Amino acid sequence: MDHNLPGSPELVTSRLETEFAVPAQVEDAYRRMADFARLHGSQNRRVILVTSGGTKVPLESHTVRFLDNFSSGTRGATSAELFLQADYAVIFLYRHRSLFPFVRRFAALNILDVLRLKEGVGLEEPRVEPDLTALPNIVEILHRYESVKQKGLLLPVEFSTLSEYLHLLKAAAQALSPLGSSAMFYLAAAVSDFYIPASEMPQHKIQSSSGPLQLSMKMVPKILSPLVKDWAPKAYVISFKLETDPSILVDRARKALETYNHQAVVANVLDTRRSCVTIVTRDSQIDLRLSDEEAARGMELEEKIVNYLQDCHAHFISQ
Amino acid sequence: MDHNLPGSPELVTSRLETEFAVPAQVEDAYRRMADFARLHGSQNRRVILVTSGGTKVPLESHTVRFLDNFSSGTRGATSAELFLQADYAVIFLYRHRSLFPFVRRFAALNILDVLRLKEGVGLEEPRVEPDLTALPNIVEILHRYESVKQKGLLLPVEFSTLSEYLHLLKAAAQALSPLGSSAMFYLAAAVSDFYIPASEMPQHKIQSSSGPLQLSMKMVPKILSPLVKDWAPKAYVISFKLETDPSILVDRARKALETYNHQAVVANVLDTRRSCVTIVTRDSQIDLRLSDEEAARGMELEEKIVNYLQDCHAHFISQ
Repeated sequence: MDHNLPGSPELVTSRLETEFAVPAQVEDAYRRMADFARLHGSQNRRVILVTSGGTKVPLESHTVRFLDNFSSGTRGATSAELFLQADYAVIFLYRHRSLFPFVRRFAALNILDVLRLKEGVGLEEPRVEPDLTALPNIVEILHRYESVKQKGLLLPVEFSTLSEYLHLLKAAAQALSPLGSSAMFYLAAAVSDFYIPASEMPQHKIQSSSGPLQLSMKMVPKILSPLVKDWAPKAYVISFKLETDPSILVDRARKALETYNHQAVVANVLDTRRSCVTIVTRDSQIDLRLSDEEAARGMELEEKIVNYLQDCHAHFISQ
Repeated sequence: MDHNLPGSPELVTSRLETEFAVPAQVEDAYRRMADFARLHGSQNRRVILVTSGGTKVPLESHTVRFLDNFSSGTRGATSAELFLQADYAVIFLYRHRSLFPFVRRFAALNILDVLRLKEGVGLEEPRVEPDLTALPNIVEILHRYESVKQKGLLLPVEFSTLSEYLHLLKAAAQALSPLGSSAMFYLAAAVSDFYIPASEMPQHKIQSSSGPLQLSMKMVPKILSPLVKDWAPKAYVISFKLETDPSILVDRARKALETYNHQAVVANVLDTRRSCVTIVTRDSQIDLRLSDEEAARGMELEEKIVNYLQDCHAHFISQ
């Protein structure tokens, strides 16, 4: 392999270290992820890293403006919930304020709209009560959420910027690598393809009086390359492909598999992402669809995705 | 005045109509805002439009990527609360998912962490109870929130994109204009200075395989210009200026006042925005500061800003 190629694992790792400042929280996050992996590995539990939400790419060092990616985090948060149900231990690497497992069901509500004041009798203080009609299935969901917390099966790790995401992903890969094929990477986050290197960034807010804005953005190093080859070479790795043009979708997914040599790509088109994905592996390609009837009774496409991929993972481990 | 200037009110209005598609919700929002203004105007209540949060600027028509502005909405949401306390009726034009009056105090909490399951006795269903230790002052805040809702003093209107913001601001100005000097505009939203016109936008997701990204962004029309001159010429208008470089702050604020001929600019520097602002009017300039001691006992800088500006507004009305 020509290691001077822009995507070579060595070059990506070195660009990560030189062009993206290491965020303060990485060391501590690494320690927590490594402890989590060790504990659950010792109990023979499979461990998955689910990434979720978009990345923020600053355009100025004192950041006022940034480039962002569309992603509410639905795919990641829903899948994390289902992997927990399938008895995985889950590291949830998610964008600050994107959707969170379990909580996602109530994300549209504000907390003051679901609490009610009940006037006390006589001199009694007023009481605060939840409005259960605004919180469907709350008992069941609280049960599941509290049980997951109590058993320590979910480790949330937050990021906001692209830099944070890249360094935390590397730390996660190194934390999970000792688990070999029992570790899974489910890279559902919508990561920016472009960024402005710190050295080329204006220090202060770009002035609008200077006229139209010309931005020249560099391509983000292809982190999948060292992740698959160097950081967690035995793990089961799933990447995601989101396009708006359906005609190029499967080709791009296949190309990614050839380039990075990982296990699977979940490919989807923006407009139909809630009802249809194509999962591409080296020797298979399957469409998973949610029918209108299934959607109507509250089923989510992620159930099919997680079912399918955990079978793939079990097969991978057994080999 | 030379009406061919890029910032002339006529040119801004015409660019708004031709380059920014009118969002579907504007007509309905206009009707709700006009009704709200009419009702509160008839009760001799002052009405304020508070804008809050950043704007989203799409880079693609099927949007995956967008440019965003840093803004959690703290200034807007906190000020809206205080203007309500000062007996204004408030139209709150805010970015989807940015902070909201009252609710902002609990924004860092997730709803499942503040509810507890209490097992029922015997065959009783488990009960859901709020964890009041996680909700400081909840009784007082619920009281205020419910009272504001009940009296209909707060009209929330949501936006996400720059286009939505611009058209909704115009609609708000037209809805408030009949109130003359009793109407106030408090434009705290962090609005993008740059955008890509729909006609120059790629239809599909920009491919990273095409190499580095060159973006050429046009300047957003200066909406303050027609707002002050044509849409609500008698109102009290306050704009905001956020810089990262303190040395240019007051100059820029003065320049804005000269250019748009409105009443006040609240100027602040990113790093110190929670503890210090400068309010600049045509014939005054005042620094408002929050001391460490004031901050420690829970005071917020917005109390000083709102106090000062409502005095200015009262004086303006009386003239």
